[in-house]
Amino acid sequence: MSLQSIKYSRGSLEILDQLLLPGQSKYVVVRGVEDGWKVINKMQVRGAPAIAIVGCLSLAVEVNPEEFGSKKLLRQEIEGKLNYLVSARPTAVNMKIAADELITLANELDKNETIDVAEMKQRFLSATEAMLKKDIADNRAIGAHGANAILQRVTEAGGSSAGSAGSVRVLTHCNTGSLATAGFGTALGVVRQLGELGKLEHVYCTETRPYNQGARLTAYELVHEKFPATLVLDSMVAALLRAKNVAAVVVGADRVAANGDTANKIGTYQIAVVAKHHDVPFYVAAPLTSIDLAIPSGDHIIIEERPDREMTHVGEHRIAAPGINCWNPAFDVTPASLITGIITERGVFKPVELKAAITKLL
Amino acid sequence: MSLQSIKYSRGSLEILDQLLLPGQSKYVVVRGVEDGWKVINKMQVRGAPAIAIVGCLSLAVEVNPEEFGSKKLLRQEIEGKLNYLVSARPTAVNMKIAADELITLANELDKNETIDVAEMKQRFLSATEAMLKKDIADNRAIGAHGANAILQRVTEAGGSSAGSAGSVRVLTHCNTGSLATAGFGTALGVVRQLGELGKLEHVYCTETRPYNQGARLTAYELVHEKFPATLVLDSMVAALLRAKNVAAVVVGADRVAANGDTANKIGTYQIAVVAKHHDVPFYVAAPLTSIDLAIPSGDHIIIEERPDREMTHVGEHRIAAPGINCWNPAFDVTPASLITGIITERGVFKPVELKAAITKLL
Repeated sequence: MSLQSIKYSRGSLEILDQLLLPGQSKYVVVRGVEDGWKVINKMQVRGAPAIAIVGCLSLAVEVNPEEFGSKKLLRQEIEGKLNYLVSARPTAVNMKIAADELITLANELDKNETIDVAEMKQRFLSATEAMLKKDIADNRAIGAHGANAILQRVTEAGGSSAGSAGSVRVLTHCNTGSLATAGFGTALGVVRQLGELGKLEHVYCTETRPYNQGARLTAYELVHEKFPATLVLDSMVAALLRAKNVAAVVVGADRVAANGDTANKIGTYQIAVVAKHHDVPFYVAAPLTSIDLAIPSGDHIIIEERPDREMTHVGEHRIAAPGINCWNPAFDVTPASLITGIITERGVFKPVELKAAITKLL
Repeated sequence: MSLQSIKYSRGSLEILDQLLLPGQSKYVVVRGVEDGWKVINKMQVRGAPAIAIVGCLSLAVEVNPEEFGSKKLLRQEIEGKLNYLVSARPTAVNMKIAADELITLANELDKNETIDVAEMKQRFLSATEAMLKKDIADNRAIGAHGANAILQRVTEAGGSSAGSAGSVRVLTHCNTGSLATAGFGTALGVVRQLGELGKLEHVYCTETRPYNQGARLTAYELVHEKFPATLVLDSMVAALLRAKNVAAVVVGADRVAANGDTANKIGTYQIAVVAKHHDVPFYVAAPLTSIDLAIPSGDHIIIEERPDREMTHVGEHRIAAPGINCWNPAFDVTPASLITGIITERGVFKPVELKAAITKLL
C-alpha cells in the first residue's frame, strides 16, 4: 500500500509527522481546528496541497460530531475557523483558495432554502472529503498517464532503454510524493505507477540540496514502498545518465507557464540540460492547477532567493567557511525546449501544444 | 599574501591544521619526523603533493641541527625516517615517490667522494626545500598560463564575457588551492592569478558534495584572500551560467589520459556538460605529473566507489532516510570533447594536441 501521509475517515484524522522524518515514523492525531492549525504552523505537514487538505479536514473532524442550532451558526463556524486556519501559514496559497471555496459553498448552502442544517453539514463534510479524494485521484491519473508515456516511448525506441520484461530505470528530483501531496504524488506518482505495474527496474533520487528533500523524504517513501531505489548526489546526474541505462527523468513543477517553461526546485534546469545531452527524455508532472496560462513564459516567473543559512548549516552544524557569500535561489526555470512532455491528470502534452490543449479542457 | 598552508624556513615548519577548518585557523608546529608522521596520519595535512612535502620537510627540520659522525650514518637516518614517513598514509603515492627520490639522492651523495658529511647534509636540505619551491613555482606557472588563456579568449570573443576593465567571472569546483597543494594551487591558482592581476570580477565555487571541499576549503581560501566570491550548490551551476555572465570554468584533475579525458572529483563531468550547453569555456588545470600518457583514454580509469555513509551523514548527523541505497563514485571522467584546454606549468594545450606536446616536452 502506498505511503499515507494523511489518514482520514469521517470523524478521524491523523498525519505523519514530517518533522520527525526520516528518523521516526509517527502519526499525530488531529482532533480539530486547534490541532490542525498547530501541525500546519509547526510544519509537521508540508507541501501546498497537503496543507490545504489537512486544514480543511481538521475542520471536518471538529464539525462532524457537533450539532448546530441554525444554518447561520454553522456558516459562521465554517467561515471563522477556515480564516483562522489560513493564518497558520499565510503564504500557503492553496489553503486560502480551499478556504474561499468552502466559504462560498457554506454561503450557498445557507441560502439554499431546500436543505436543513443537518443536510448542510453533510454536504459540507462531503465537499471537504472530496478535496482529498480529488487530489489523490488526480495524482493517480498523472501516474497512469506518465507511466504509459515513458513505457510507450521506450517501446518505440526499440527497447534499448528497457530492462528485463520492458521495465525501466528512472530518475527523479526533490520530493513530489505522498509527503508533498494529499497522497500518491505527482512525479513520484509516476514512479509509483511504474512500480505498481511491475515495470520499475530502478529509481534514482537526487539528494536535492539545500533541504535534502530527496535524501530525507523521497528516499523515505521509496524505502517504505520497497522499490529498488538508489540515492545519488545532485552532482552525479551526468555520471549516472552516462553509466546507467536511465529511460526517463520525471520531476514535479511549482508553476508551468503557458509556453511550457517550468519553475521547479533548484537543480531541475541542470538535470534537464544533462538529460538533453544524454538524449534521455525529460518529463514534468504537474496537476492542471499548477499550469498558469496567464504567464506567457518562464521569464515572467520571479525566483525567490532564500537565506544563506540554508546552505551554510545542516541543523546547528556549520558546513561552510564563515564569511563566504551564498547564492541561494529556491527554484530555477527549465525552458520548454528541454522538456519532452508535461504530464497532467488529463494526459501528457508537448510544451508547444500545452496552451491549446489546456484551453480546450477548461 | 596568498594563504600559506605550509610555513617553512630552514629549521622551522608549521602547517595549517585542516581538521579545524573552516571554523578555526590554527598552525601546528612540526618539530621533526614524529610530528610529521602524526600530522599526516591524523590528516591535519591533506592532498597528495602537500603530504609528500610536509613529510620530507619534517625530516629536514629534524636533520638540520644534528651532527652526523659519518655520511653513512646520515644516509641511514634519511632512509629509515623516510620509510617510516611513508607508513603514515601508505596509499599517498606522492610521499613514496618523494621518499624514493631523496633516498636515491642520499645514496649518490654517500658514494660521492668529493663531498664531506656537512656538504652532504646541506645538499640534502637543499633538495628537500627545492621540492616545496618547485611545486609552488609549477602552480604559479599554471596560474599564469591559465589566467592568460581565459583573458585572451574573452578578448577574442569581443569582450562579451568581460566585466569592467576586462575582468572576468569564473567558476571552480572542489578544492585545488593552497590547502590541496604545497601552495597557490592549480585551478584555484588560476583564480588567484586573475585576482593578483586585478582581473577577477567574481569567483563562484561549488559546495562539492559529499565532503564539501568547496564550501569548507575553497570558500575558506577565497574569504582569506578577500576575493569577491560566492558559494553555490552543485545543483545550481546551470542556473548560474544562465543568470550570470561567467567567462570560464576551471577545475583540477586527479588524472588526465593521453587523449585529454580527465578524471576529477565527482560532479566535474556534469559541470562540463552544462558549460558546453551554455557555451562557456571549460578548462582543466593540472601539473604535468598528473598527465598519464600510458592511459590512452578515460575508459581505462577505474572509478573508486566510496562508502554510503559519506552521503547519508554529515558528521554524526544522519541526513538521509535509513535503509536507502547510495551510489557514491568519488570521481567521474570528463571526455576530452568537452574540454577547451588543459592548463599545465608548460602552457595550455587542447586535448587533441596534448600527447604530442607533452611527449616533446619530456
